[in-house]
Amino acid sequence: MSATAAPSPAATEVEQWLARFGEALERGDAAGAAELFAPESYWRDLVAFTWNIKTVEGREEIRDMLEHTLGDVKPRNWHASEEPDSADGVTTAWIAFETEVGRGQGLLRLIEGQAWTMLTVLDELKGYEQDLGFRRPKGVAHGANPERHTWLEDRQREAEELGYTMQPYVVIVGGGQGGIALGARLRQLDVPTIIVERNPRPGDSWRNRYKSLCLHDPVWYDHLPYIKFPPNWPVFSPKDKIADWLEMYTRVMELNYWGSTTATSARYDEAAGEWILTVERDGKEITLRPKQLVMATGMSGRPHTPQFPGMDRFKGDQHHSSQHPGPDAYRGKRAVVVGSNNSAHDICAALWEHGADVTMVQRSSTHVVRSETLMEIALGALYSEDAVASGMTTEKADLTFASLPYRILAGLQIPVYERIRERDADFYARLEAAGFQHDWGEDGSGLFMKYLRRASGYYIDVGASELVASGQVKLQPGQVDHLTEDAVVMADGTELPADLVVYATGYESMNGFVADLISQEVADKVGKVWGLGSDTTKDPGPWEGEQRNMWKPTQQEGLWFHGGNLHQSRHYSLALALQLKARAEGIDTPVYGLQEVHHTR
Amino acid sequence: MSATAAPSPAATEVEQWLARFGEALERGDAAGAAELFAPESYWRDLVAFTWNIKTVEGREEIRDMLEHTLGDVKPRNWHASEEPDSADGVTTAWIAFETEVGRGQGLLRLIEGQAWTMLTVLDELKGYEQDLGFRRPKGVAHGANPERHTWLEDRQREAEELGYTMQPYVVIVGGGQGGIALGARLRQLDVPTIIVERNPRPGDSWRNRYKSLCLHDPVWYDHLPYIKFPPNWPVFSPKDKIADWLEMYTRVMELNYWGSTTATSARYDEAAGEWILTVERDGKEITLRPKQLVMATGMSGRPHTPQFPGMDRFKGDQHHSSQHPGPDAYRGKRAVVVGSNNSAHDICAALWEHGADVTMVQRSSTHVVRSETLMEIALGALYSEDAVASGMTTEKADLTFASLPYRILAGLQIPVYERIRERDADFYARLEAAGFQHDWGEDGSGLFMKYLRRASGYYIDVGASELVASGQVKLQPGQVDHLTEDAVVMADGTELPADLVVYATGYESMNGFVADLISQEVADKVGKVWGLGSDTTKDPGPWEGEQRNMWKPTQQEGLWFHGGNLHQSRHYSLALALQLKARAEGIDTPVYGLQEVHHTR
Repeated sequence: MSATAAPSPAATEVEQWLARFGEALERGDAAGAAELFAPESYWRDLVAFTWNIKTVEGREEIRDMLEHTLGDVKPRNWHASEEPDSADGVTTAWIAFETEVGRGQGLLRLIEGQAWTMLTVLDELKGYEQDLGFRRPKGVAHGANPERHTWLEDRQREAEELGYTMQPYVVIVGGGQGGIALGARLRQLDVPTIIVERNPRPGDSWRNRYKSLCLHDPVWYDHLPYIKFPPNWPVFSPKDKIADWLEMYTRVMELNYWGSTTATSARYDEAAGEWILTVERDGKEITLRPKQLVMATGMSGRPHTPQFPGMDRFKGDQHHSSQHPGPDAYRGKRAVVVGSNNSAHDICAALWEHGADVTMVQRSSTHVVRSETLMEIALGALYSEDAVASGMTTEKADLTFASLPYRILAGLQIPVYERIRERDADFYARLEAAGFQHDWGEDGSGLFMKYLRRASGYYIDVGASELVASGQVKLQPGQVDHLTEDAVVMADGTELPADLVVYATGYESMNGFVADLISQEVADKVGKVWGLGSDTTKDPGPWEGEQRNMWKPTQQEGLWFHGGNLHQSRHYSLALALQLKARAEGIDTPVYGLQEVHHTR
Repeated sequence: MSATAAPSPAATEVEQWLARFGEALERGDAAGAAELFAPESYWRDLVAFTWNIKTVEGREEIRDMLEHTLGDVKPRNWHASEEPDSADGVTTAWIAFETEVGRGQGLLRLIEGQAWTMLTVLDELKGYEQDLGFRRPKGVAHGANPERHTWLEDRQREAEELGYTMQPYVVIVGGGQGGIALGARLRQLDVPTIIVERNPRPGDSWRNRYKSLCLHDPVWYDHLPYIKFPPNWPVFSPKDKIADWLEMYTRVMELNYWGSTTATSARYDEAAGEWILTVERDGKEITLRPKQLVMATGMSGRPHTPQFPGMDRFKGDQHHSSQHPGPDAYRGKRAVVVGSNNSAHDICAALWEHGADVTMVQRSSTHVVRSETLMEIALGALYSEDAVASGMTTEKADLTFASLPYRILAGLQIPVYERIRERDADFYARLEAAGFQHDWGEDGSGLFMKYLRRASGYYIDVGASELVASGQVKLQPGQVDHLTEDAVVMADGTELPADLVVYATGYESMNGFVADLISQEVADKVGKVWGLGSDTTKDPGPWEGEQRNMWKPTQQEGLWFHGGNLHQSRHYSLALALQLKARAEGIDTPVYGLQEVHHTR
């Protein structure tokens, strides 16, 4: 209705910045482009410039990155993709651009005319665009064709041939949500892929967990690519319901999913540039020769079970939390749960609900946030029904989140947790009065940073903390010294009689799976998986700037890691899938800043 | 950004009309309200005023409807729900209102300040709103609760009890797309429902059809309620793919779906106000006692197979099109397909593709439209990727379509088909040159009106017409006289040698199923299903104004019909589900204008 309005000051600022930036890039002037950034500045790139997931910090690193990449990438056509916004001295703009081989988008934040943060994300490869929306397949070839085969015949033929007479380009080891999300991306990109999963059906890794388990993340955060949960989906999915969803998703997305299949060994054939991967499918050994091998075995890695003297003498049940069958068999029994993070709390609560006598052994401090508070204060702006109603799409939320470089994220999180501490002061007071050792992360940056740094050390409270505070679940601080035939004995001599001991003692780095499947040598070569190098507990320095080894090239050619929570699985699966697709199509993919290995586990 | 702008002339016109209308209704002035309509005017109501699906035409009928309904309905709070629009002298407004028991929306068209068309649709019942979006369930009850049962335990208990120790309120006979869509609505409205389907799995009614079958309607038209097809979904779904979707949909929407179950007899117990329905489930007889019985057995009804002398002597294969197994067994064989509508064309093409010698017997003229033309010209504005891109939601498209009263629809369709005739003139010339008898419907109103009036008499061309035009599929006009051991003989003596005869001869009215399941008496009491009373071939008058018996009360208490194409199944399932929910909750549902029965089949 309106005539052409004058551009806003924010729009002008962004347009001018992008014009100067684009010109510098086109004339190959890395230094000139870097000068457009503020002295403290961050450029996070997902695959578009670096064929890597990489954050460069400050003008020097930005200049270096551009010097190494501009010649190949040939970025151009920078523009704002919607009306920029200004608030609190920061101008924020959704941007779009293209490179020699692809199209990308990003988010730019300017302060006083200089770039403070920039996110660049590769969206698609030219000539290999996904067949979505306007490009969706027709489904039927109109006209009469004696050679016609039906969709079903094609699907059946593929199922018969792939892995037998035709080799997949990618094998994904692990068919949980991570493997499934990546599998869906690769299917849409037409990369022949097999997902290998030891359980029979998609979703079984959820079905097999303790029966009271519900997702601790809310539905808006958990969507898979392409098919969103419907509006009637519960905020916190019960485990069997999400399992059904994963199963149907695998089916309708037409994934080649090999259930009841165990990967038994893998070796990289340098000469052929491919993996020799042995799997056992329904009892038969099959050798696969994919070019790329993706480990999606659960980002928590192998269960970590501590070794206490006397474990061999203990006569009750004992198992790692990942093996815990649920509370049904333990009514009236005495349970000791070693650990005080998420699984420990969930398991304690379920055992208590089923009439067990429950003691939680807290060996070190834990960070607790009430689920409702977390939803409202930490996630609400991006992932909530309010966010949806105000036009925040899942894709935009993901990009917004991705646009905050890890270096400054902790600083941005601290005030969030200060608000939480204030809001739930009573709750924390009661918890601490009960003797619970509580922390907020070493720098007070709270739950999400703990997750990114170490993937442990916290509990999202959905009710168990009340049981701890009230003493209904007993709390025992300190270290375990040994076990007897029927008790856990603490270092101070306290004896905890037990019919059941659950070791909710966490997981090792995911490269442990590499040691099992490939070799210790390759596991050490790729090094520790996860963490940022924040130099905090369980996340030793030096600073890495990105999650170690996740969704990006590793020191082992053809070996990749995928996973994380449902949000990360969704978002980063596209970045990883595009890296794999480019290689499948023979597109040159020079990696800038391949991570070095500082830790082997 | 803008200050409060002055309302547009369209907005003012709508606001003033709605104010006068609302005031007339509130003071119970039916005549005064009717005077706000033009002399030629239409009010279509889906359940909000009439507890019926009913179009009243002209001031007199509108006044009568209001006189009978206002006292109960107590409509109020009429307002435009978005900015009205004016074009070609018509002002169009999305409106919202509420009644004593519910909330509704609609579409109003004004010409020179008077209402020309009005649609009113009941959206939800107060106190029984669906748990969607902001109201979605939490999924987990936070806190510790010794009585907790999990989602899986609840689902399992329901599956064990419903139909055995607990009676469903509704039984839907037929678990195709219609039954499934209605089942999903009823689940969301918390109405205990069982869907009874003789095939083992949801989707089997598609899987069992001939193998080349794809939907002839495009994806944007076909969405089910709550979960949309993803952006990678093909425009025309292959039958096995849509079958998989229906199967997973049934699972994730948590429907109580009894596969491998046949409804064998039903009787209405007047005294108890419930049905005594006998079903055979996995070989065991079970008696169900639902208050409401919905026939969703396929709106085409029972197969109609003509009786020709000599059929008993014919030695080849012969079957109705609904039983046709597909072309694989007929390579090199001679096939005669009796009929020239959709199924006949599809089957001829598939047989020809598989190397059969194929003759199509055309007994009467058929209307043909090329699929692409239909998509572009007839559907594109409401159901297409362009429509989606321009902000047309499925819900709005459905309401827009529903807002055109059937009386004027034919007149609006005629120019559409004139454009089609012009655009594809070459195509029609070739078809007619080959001897194909083509028509445009008796009044030139084309395909959709034929569908609404008689659900037959057309073919959406996806390639078979080219085979007919080129003579690759032979065309035989005229009537079949009899069959011999190895041929079909025409009335003019022409002999068509045949190894296979397919009777693509259509279906009877859906009340045929009522005769089978309940009794001929009840089938006659409810009368013919489908059609508008347009007084054209296979749709005798008098004018009914709405589809006979579909989605609304019938002359048999507690008996309902549901179905239609995927679009109708989706859209009208809400109207039907709300009628059932209101009865389940004991809300008074006085039906205005219960249809009379003019035809028994």
